[in-house]
Amino acid sequence: MRLLVINPNISTGVTALIEAEARRSAEPGTALTLRTAPFGVAYIETRFEALIGAYAAAQLAAEDHAGHDAVIVAAFGDPGVAALREVLPVPVIGLTESALSTALLLGRRVSVIAISQRIQAWYREVIRDLGQLDRLASIRALDQALGRIDRVGDAHADVLLALCERAVHEDGAEVLILAGAPLAGLSRQLEGRLPVPVVDGVSCAVRQAQSLVRQRPGPALAGGGAPPPLKPNAGLPDAMARLLADGAARTQAATRSGDRSDTSEQ
Amino acid sequence: MRLLVINPNISTGVTALIEAEARRSAEPGTALTLRTAPFGVAYIETRFEALIGAYAAAQLAAEDHAGHDAVIVAAFGDPGVAALREVLPVPVIGLTESALSTALLLGRRVSVIAISQRIQAWYREVIRDLGQLDRLASIRALDQALGRIDRVGDAHADVLLALCERAVHEDGAEVLILAGAPLAGLSRQLEGRLPVPVVDGVSCAVRQAQSLVRQRPGPALAGGGAPPPLKPNAGLPDAMARLLADGAARTQAATRSGDRSDTSEQ
Amino acid sequence: MRLLVINPNISTGVTALIEAEARRSAEPGTALTLRTAPFGVAYIETRFEALIGAYAAAQLAAEDHAGHDAVIVAAFGDPGVAALREVLPVPVIGLTESALSTALLLGRRVSVIAISQRIQAWYREVIRDLGQLDRLASIRALDQALGRIDRVGDAHADVLLALCERAVHEDGAEVLILAGAPLAGLSRQLEGRLPVPVVDGVSCAVRQAQSLVRQRPGPALAGGGAPPPLKPNAGLPDAMARLLADGAARTQAATRSGDRSDTSEQ
Amino acid sequence: MRLLVINPNISTGVTALIEAEARRSAEPGTALTLRTAPFGVAYIETRFEALIGAYAAAQLAAEDHAGHDAVIVAAFGDPGVAALREVLPVPVIGLTESALSTALLLGRRVSVIAISQRIQAWYREVIRDLGQLDRLASIRALDQALGRIDRVGDAHADVLLALCERAVHEDGAEVLILAGAPLAGLSRQLEGRLPVPVVDGVSCAVRQAQSLVRQRPGPALAGGGAPPPLKPNAGLPDAMARLLADGAARTQAATRSGDRSDTSEQ
Amino acid sequence: MRLLVINPNISTGVTALIEAEARRSAEPGTALTLRTAPFGVAYIETRFEALIGAYAAAQLAAEDHAGHDAVIVAAFGDPGVAALREVLPVPVIGLTESALSTALLLGRRVSVIAISQRIQAWYREVIRDLGQLDRLASIRALDQALGRIDRVGDAHADVLLALCERAVHEDGAEVLILAGAPLAGLSRQLEGRLPVPVVDGVSCAVRQAQSLVRQRPGPALAGGGAPPPLKPNAGLPDAMARLLADGAARTQAATRSGDRSDTSEQ
Amino acid sequence: MRLLVINPNISTGVTALIEAEARRSAEPGTALTLRTAPFGVAYIETRFEALIGAYAAAQLAAEDHAGHDAVIVAAFGDPGVAALREVLPVPVIGLTESALSTALLLGRRVSVIAISQRIQAWYREVIRDLGQLDRLASIRALDQALGRIDRVGDAHADVLLALCERAVHEDGAEVLILAGAPLAGLSRQLEGRLPVPVVDGVSCAVRQAQSLVRQRPGPALAGGGAPPPLKPNAGLPDAMARLLADGAARTQAATRSGDRSDTSEQ
Repeated sequence: MRLLVINPNISTGVTALIEAEARRSAEPGTALTLRTAPFGVAYIETRFEALIGAYAAAQLAAEDHAGHDAVIVAAFGDPGVAALREVLPVPVIGLTESALSTALLLGRRVSVIAISQRIQAWYREVIRDLGQLDRLASIRALDQALGRIDRVGDAHADVLLALCERAVHEDGAEVLILAGAPLAGLSRQLEGRLPVPVVDGVSCAVRQAQSLVRQRPGPALAGGGAPPPLKPNAGLPDAMARLLADGAARTQAATRSGDRSDTSEQ
Repeated sequence: MRLLVINPNISTGVTALIEAEARRSAEPGTALTLRTAPFGVAYIETRFEALIGAYAAAQLAAEDHAGHDAVIVAAFGDPGVAALREVLPVPVIGLTESALSTALLLGRRVSVIAISQRIQAWYREVIRDLGQLDRLASIRALDQALGRIDRVGDAHADVLLALCERAVHEDGAEVLILAGAPLAGLSRQLEGRLPVPVVDGVSCAVRQAQSLVRQRPGPALAGGGAPPPLKPNAGLPDAMARLLADGAARTQAATRSGDRSDTSEQ
Repeated sequence: MRLLVINPNISTGVTALIEAEARRSAEPGTALTLRTAPFGVAYIETRFEALIGAYAAAQLAAEDHAGHDAVIVAAFGDPGVAALREVLPVPVIGLTESALSTALLLGRRVSVIAISQRIQAWYREVIRDLGQLDRLASIRALDQALGRIDRVGDAHADVLLALCERAVHEDGAEVLILAGAPLAGLSRQLEGRLPVPVVDGVSCAVRQAQSLVRQRPGPALAGGGAPPPLKPNAGLPDAMARLLADGAARTQAATRSGDRSDTSEQ
Repeated sequence: MRLLVINPNISTGVTALIEAEARRSAEPGTALTLRTAPFGVAYIETRFEALIGAYAAAQLAAEDHAGHDAVIVAAFGDPGVAALREVLPVPVIGLTESALSTALLLGRRVSVIAISQRIQAWYREVIRDLGQLDRLASIRALDQALGRIDRVGDAHADVLLALCERAVHEDGAEVLILAGAPLAGLSRQLEGRLPVPVVDGVSCAVRQAQSLVRQRPGPALAGGGAPPPLKPNAGLPDAMARLLADGAARTQAATRSGDRSDTSEQ
Repeated sequence: MRLLVINPNISTGVTALIEAEARRSAEPGTALTLRTAPFGVAYIETRFEALIGAYAAAQLAAEDHAGHDAVIVAAFGDPGVAALREVLPVPVIGLTESALSTALLLGRRVSVIAISQRIQAWYREVIRDLGQLDRLASIRALDQALGRIDRVGDAHADVLLALCERAVHEDGAEVLILAGAPLAGLSRQLEGRLPVPVVDGVSCAVRQAQSLVRQRPGPALAGGGAPPPLKPNAGLPDAMARLLADGAARTQAATRSGDRSDTSEQ
Repeated sequence: MRLLVINPNISTGVTALIEAEARRSAEPGTALTLRTAPFGVAYIETRFEALIGAYAAAQLAAEDHAGHDAVIVAAFGDPGVAALREVLPVPVIGLTESALSTALLLGRRVSVIAISQRIQAWYREVIRDLGQLDRLASIRALDQALGRIDRVGDAHADVLLALCERAVHEDGAEVLILAGAPLAGLSRQLEGRLPVPVVDGVSCAVRQAQSLVRQRPGPALAGGGAPPPLKPNAGLPDAMARLLADGAARTQAATRSGDRSDTSEQ
């Protein structure tokens, strides 16, 4: 199985963290392609940075998805994921959706541990839009200068552990998510040190992606999740234009095939 | 890895369907233990039947979980799952939670295809209680005598396919769940015949269980998901009393250990 | 009028508290049958204990409901109530539903005063599943060893009163529920000492049950609340198997009678 | 026990229907005072008519509540009820809240049967504002000229019965509410003719009011449900000004008494 | 353009504040008619006071709306607004709806700054009924004697500013509403002193009203927002009876005209 | 006042429609700058097309916002609006938010009239994410080939009118939104032909934008709506990098100034 793992941000250090955790989590024999955004910011805390990351993820996915069985957008907040899901012929997974859906199999209410105060407003929105606000016990976040973004987990491990404990003892968390690609792998270090289950977004995403590939649920070729219908476009990167054309072609083929079978039923 | 798969109902025919799909879905080398409820009904359509199934599942899990890495309750509606999750030392998975969380990674709105009209009220409640009512496009169900419960999928395949198509074209489904253990395996037969992704509860549950085991998120030993605190009990089946005692002991050990570490920090 | 009042837990001391408050609350001339669970735990704090209590309540109701006009499951969290409501031919009432629906006639937002920290997660879920989470001002709970469960109200009356006051002055409660059978009767002792209305679950349940009996709303013989349709069962306690058979028979009789009346209209 | 029952509309014929059902529903020995609005409309279908009815109900309650143990506002939609609850020293009950809270003890999802198409938008809002929209199966309503408003139940009994049946068989209703004072008493005539429980608003309100009186939950003297704090007023009907003054005096007395007891604890 | 601005309370001092801010906010050339309630209270903190204000607003609107292009009810909580919207032939705007809908164009989560502790329960309900509870960051309110109600903004400006700052820094507010007519104009004084956008209800209402007038969206003459259907009424102030008659006449004319056009299409 | 109006799609014909309606709606003396996306699709029906439109809107806004008082993204679904709101120093308005907030001032429940079947899934999501799903009466849409996108309103006016009428008479709409830039101006042509208020997104957006500018609510310089904190970026278009730098500089200046004032209070 081949997975394309996209860091929608520009930090190659974070890409290395993602890759390390993805390799630890993947089934033996999985081929991983890692890509780092050629444009954007170091990490995402806000809606505007998510907009940039979404477009970068889309461009990378358009260019590089061929030959892969699934695509992972390795940032919390899932920039571009719902959009890419429409147009790519393979499953597309983001860290928030996969971490949250995994966490909610382990406990009723979840707390999210995050790397900055500012990030909380956006995380709350993302979780609300997924319909899970009332299962969110709290978001707790670092409140200090981060230093190198790919060292946050190491540099602040003690404070992060303390935030986890407060989430359990003060907020009612039954399970914890260590959120964001910069914390990839941290949950392994904390193993056995927390009294509730802890999940890591990258690990959840890799496993869910592999599970989806093996299940072969089939592509969306009709309805609100199918590729965008054909319409004029202009000025797009070649790969993105091709993605739109290919998607529309798949849908049309499916519709024609559907028509034929309808006809043959008469 | 060893999985305990519990059919909380009495139909050994349905257990055979569950086993077949579980074997097709499990990682190579997985050991499966299948158990059929020693008491109860043939299949669950109502809240009262779910109450019976929940207790049967709890009893089987108490007796047989030892030596397994995860427990699956193989009925839609997840009877007993949230309760068992507190008290067992390993992950516990039900078909609805796992099918729904998988489906929602594949599309925005889901329809559930069910085996009887009566079952719809209960399914709707279960999905509502999971917080996903507004992502439910519809529940569509058979409206005819079922015949043998372990042959429903075969006997009514054409009608079920037609229900799927109506869910896509009339209700806005972006993804479909074939619900209930009696339909286990049907999604494989429909592969390529539907224009949206389709998921099967047994397959989702097996894969999610294995993913959870591999992730080692750790047990709940504090907070609202930990084992029930120790208190007097009486008249319970031995295995269930032992389960309560073991759970309370784990929690107390964790608390003591927590106390010690607190102490050592002084 | 005859009421069956079931303590789904094993504490006969708590049954005595329930009985005392039920007698104070019942209309003159009401005959009360009290039953204590033959198996289970002393009191319910968790989902797993609620699963056990639900099955015990179902078994007692199946054995003893004959000759009664309504059944009360006298534990907060209403274990088994929704399930029994389907299958019994008389109204079935639980403490949470009745206390909450009474409280919400007295004020807009309610606080629940509970006997243990652990119980809060489960109570919150129960209230959420009843659709009233945004009318919950808070849950406040004792945080100390309880001692004898049937003496909690007496032993901790001052702390419970202080929790009530904090709910009013800090949390915005307009009305209070003293939750759980172990606190049955406490609200009478606090009368006149709190600045907002206070309700007691046992008293609410007895009154609502009697009101329902007098209203004669009729049984559910069709739709999602009717008895479970007939299907094979095995291994159940005799009383429970009889309950299923009787329920299915009632529904079929109603359907046949409906068919006849349809015919006669032609 | 003495109950004040207010028809917030001007139809004395409807008041007679309300009185008849209230007498059938009340405990033996209950004294009922019936009042008809001196100004307003014949019945309420819209928000504006509800505004008028709310003020009429408030005025009647202010004038006549003295000597009564509870007040019932006998119109669906509960005009003025939440407001009067703050300021009157006794329980205040409306038809919608009491019918809905009773119905939801009998089944999971409820349909409301109403007398006009136009009334549906307003009823839906009222039920939504009570937080129960997802337990509403449907509102079904007459779609024809009503004739005399106090004969609607008699004149259209067959159509109303047919609407009830469609609610059960097409909409998933597990319980029915015959909504609005003009249908008071109709549920008795339909007894045994419908396959699900049916409730009547007037009957529910009378019983809930009596239950609340007997429970003696105590008045609201602090928090968001207490009488309005004292402030200048002008131009109000004498009874309403007195109501405000009395309410503020009660609250202040309670606060002073609270202060004293605080002092005495030192 | 002519606007009728109604203070539903009796304080002429507050009317003066409203008028001053309305004049500052209105387009050049706007004619403003200000009216103060002839009966009621000084300001609204509770549901009962809102009931009185709603009726006063309705009476003033009935008497004086002729010749105006829109009506503003200048109190937070929007007493009478939804009702008047049905029956008046011009747009009707309240402070809460307009402030909230403006604020939510400026930021994701809003805090409301209010003049008294007691007012918070009612404000919360109003915002909840508008469906925006999860976008409410907090309500923060003065907790001291107010003094003259038309001087609250001046007398307590520093405390109000401090409440604003806490809403931003502790509650996550992205935008602030200074709530209630007594604070009309305060936001201008705070300009530049707060790190998030701040809106004033009177200003929002005047601007939204003018925007609606210019847009000419047309009146509601069918459906759930049309004037109440004709029915008997009695005892109403002349202006209110006329309002009902005029509304019903407009609807009937529209229906007849609709019928004719239907006919002419044949 | 100067407004920047961005068509996030490539159709200059649609830009002309937007411009015409914007000129009709703007205050006299308003200067409008219209921009058409240099890359993207003809119109947006799906999440992926919205992702592209969001990035195009962001790029145009970054390049051209200088010298403007507000920015309008003239497409339904508001691509990029929440993101741009963080980073631009002036108000940013989208068609959906402004049309919806205007419509909800005119009636309780709204129907959206749309140009294609496919568009409905996405529109529903957008409205849900704004928290207004339960005020959505329906989405009704054309179901035919559109022809030229800038002629949809003209070519299909009769069908669109019929959809409007069905929304009122079958779905309970109290107000209508003609959704999407391609229908800009159509509501003027339908004036007087529909029995409920109708609003146009472009007109609403222009008026709301002007209202916001005149209100001077102040920028967001702290909290979850402030510009993204400074962090490394790379590869961005110059204008977008400058936007990030400018935003961070504004926030830092505000923080320093805040610090100073804090200091001076000591």
